[in-house]
Amino acid sequence: MSGYDVTEFGEMDTWGVAEGTGKRFANGKDGQFLGLSVNATDPGASSPFWHRHERSEEVYVFLEGQGKMALDDDVIDVQAGTVVRVAPETWRAVHSAADAGRPLKWLCMRGGGDTLNAIGHDGELDRERPFPWVA
Amino acid sequence: MSGYDVTEFGEMDTWGVAEGTGKRFANGKDGQFLGLSVNATDPGASSPFWHRHERSEEVYVFLEGQGKMALDDDVIDVQAGTVVRVAPETWRAVHSAADAGRPLKWLCMRGGGDTLNAIGHDGELDRERPFPWVA
Repeated sequence: MSGYDVTEFGEMDTWGVAEGTGKRFANGKDGQFLGLSVNATDPGASSPFWHRHERSEEVYVFLEGQGKMALDDDVIDVQAGTVVRVAPETWRAVHSAADAGRPLKWLCMRGGGDTLNAIGHDGELDRERPFPWVA
Repeated sequence: MSGYDVTEFGEMDTWGVAEGTGKRFANGKDGQFLGLSVNATDPGASSPFWHRHERSEEVYVFLEGQGKMALDDDVIDVQAGTVVRVAPETWRAVHSAADAGRPLKWLCMRGGGDTLNAIGHDGELDRERPFPWVA
């Protein structure tokens, strides 16, 4: 493994503008520990489904915009500067406020007690569970 | 451990404005895996010293401004959208360009093959090594 590697995602104003830039990953290679996604969620849009991880912890860093985050049975407001640490086993989903006037820009970092490759695919999706922001 | 916890760092425009907000931490509690710092480095300023970690990997996410990052004997340009993953054992330091006209805003996330508390203080500082951006 090299001592470092570099990925360029461009300025935040460009995130989500071109197709395919709404969610992008800088994932760990062999032997690495941390995963990162860079996200832009349009006003009114949400995660496509709830998900949780068996072993991985995730930290969500909200940088621009406004929205909500669902965490099991809780719903919290998120805005620029909100950092939410989510434990393994906790179900979560993200919502960008329809009236925010701008996309919700956020990062999700991921890691657990081992290299990411050793942890493997520890995610579980729930495509049926309704979101709390849908009336 | 609760299923989640929340920290508010405020909008990026406020980072580094009030005293004590140049570097702030959202570190893992018992049993947690990920550490995060939120940083604003004034134009012309640098890390106070080089450092490296014995076990932890770090991922630097640059969000605003321009600067350089020193990685062992390499120096790379960093700007909004640059993500640099740094392996254990690699020495690193950050510099905010004097002519950038604005602070360098960046995150540093940290994790390794265990909980942060189990990894403990694995950092090593070098207060004597000169920075490559100093002539």
